[in-house]
Amino acid sequence: MEPRPTAVAAPMQLRIADDIRMQIERGELTPGDPLPTLHELAAQWGCSLNSARSAISLLKQQGLITGGRGKAPVVRTQPRQVVRSSNRHQVEKDLVLAGEDERGQNGVAENDLGVPLDDLKFTATHEVISADADLAEGFGIEPGADVLRRVFELADPKSGHLEAWSVSYIPYDLVSAAPEIFESTKPHPGGTQHQLYAAAGIELARIDDEVTSAMPTTVTAQQWGMDPGIPMIRVRRISIDTQGRTVEISDADFPADRTKLHFSTPLTLW
Amino acid sequence: MEPRPTAVAAPMQLRIADDIRMQIERGELTPGDPLPTLHELAAQWGCSLNSARSAISLLKQQGLITGGRGKAPVVRTQPRQVVRSSNRHQVEKDLVLAGEDERGQNGVAENDLGVPLDDLKFTATHEVISADADLAEGFGIEPGADVLRRVFELADPKSGHLEAWSVSYIPYDLVSAAPEIFESTKPHPGGTQHQLYAAAGIELARIDDEVTSAMPTTVTAQQWGMDPGIPMIRVRRISIDTQGRTVEISDADFPADRTKLHFSTPLTLW
Repeated sequence: MEPRPTAVAAPMQLRIADDIRMQIERGELTPGDPLPTLHELAAQWGCSLNSARSAISLLKQQGLITGGRGKAPVVRTQPRQVVRSSNRHQVEKDLVLAGEDERGQNGVAENDLGVPLDDLKFTATHEVISADADLAEGFGIEPGADVLRRVFELADPKSGHLEAWSVSYIPYDLVSAAPEIFESTKPHPGGTQHQLYAAAGIELARIDDEVTSAMPTTVTAQQWGMDPGIPMIRVRRISIDTQGRTVEISDADFPADRTKLHFSTPLTLW
Repeated sequence: MEPRPTAVAAPMQLRIADDIRMQIERGELTPGDPLPTLHELAAQWGCSLNSARSAISLLKQQGLITGGRGKAPVVRTQPRQVVRSSNRHQVEKDLVLAGEDERGQNGVAENDLGVPLDDLKFTATHEVISADADLAEGFGIEPGADVLRRVFELADPKSGHLEAWSVSYIPYDLVSAAPEIFESTKPHPGGTQHQLYAAAGIELARIDDEVTSAMPTTVTAQQWGMDPGIPMIRVRRISIDTQGRTVEISDADFPADRTKLHFSTPLTLW
């Protein structure tokens, strides 16, 4: 999102905000650096304190600075990046046929977060719900049919903030032969692909990821400890088995300031 | 991003905003519906006009409603969705060996936007720049080496707003044998994959997509005609040829309210 000229003269607060943004992009202001005070900005630009305040507020909404409530604004530090890669789909599949020891040593959360699972609080809940129109269409089942719904959360026990959150849906008739496999409150070694195989002999043939982004609600932003102006990336993962059935739909949220998604598309060779 | 309970009682403006958000999610308020006035909200919740105003402002920042500047706020309409799919990488590759007629009938923008290219204003610019540290690392070339930089824009001639924007980088020594292939100001039939093949016999083996999201700057939001509270999705496309070289790096921006990205990962079968 690079600067390009506008046809109309921009209001003062936009000119100030864009100037500061460009200083950040050029590296003249680096993470943690304090911004000029409102009085300094007003003097520098010959503008009102209100214009300076609006510029600072804009930069906050754009996620470029932090501070407020009496604290001087500073350039935001980019926290560690969670790279979520499409390669993990195959890694998880390869683990399905591995022993439990090997599966247990390859936690997906550890790959994503770079934090040992033991340092985080894991919570899993499960319930059986009725398919709404969206799920019924996704699975090709009747609306109202039973669906297993599981919610997974990883939280930092110190801050209480979420580190990972996802919800998984599976048609209940796929799990009904061995529901206990899905009802654990601990991470299952090898993940859902292994559970589907162990419960119903299901082998996945393809995984589709759908990516969208939106601003989080206030409550969601608080639960994650997200700064203002940071969007949430949502990934819907659709798992398709060797018979062409959609066997799981999963939604995961990722705060955009700590996430990079990586998808690899091999091409047929000539 | 579904509602979950918070441990602390939320301030009035958050409770009002979350209540309205849930009405939107449940479909009780649909796109175009007007919101209650500030006086109605204040009476309903027994709160100050300021709290009601803050709630409306929050919903605007979260991209759920539009309005302002004297216009009553309404629930935001979801415009048409641009689905960008990883399948297009293979489609483009298949077109490389096709004739110009067939290539010309398969514009990528037409697939993405559902709008004939003829109805939009296409602009392409090109220049030779020096690789910065980021590009040098990405291509595995020396910093300062020549890189072809092209910027592509599609705009709606009526509104003047951007419909598509991307920037492409290619090491100059790959294009130097036939630079004229890359210097057209019109869309090249078949896209960059065909250009690379025609100029240097390059065949792609893999494309990696990296996805991030951030709030747009004020200028960028104006250029796209984006509502407040809508994030921008950025996709970096990295093209790798059959010799393992990175031959193109391209960044494209997509307003999140009209975009869904779709990636498909086939799995090795047992």
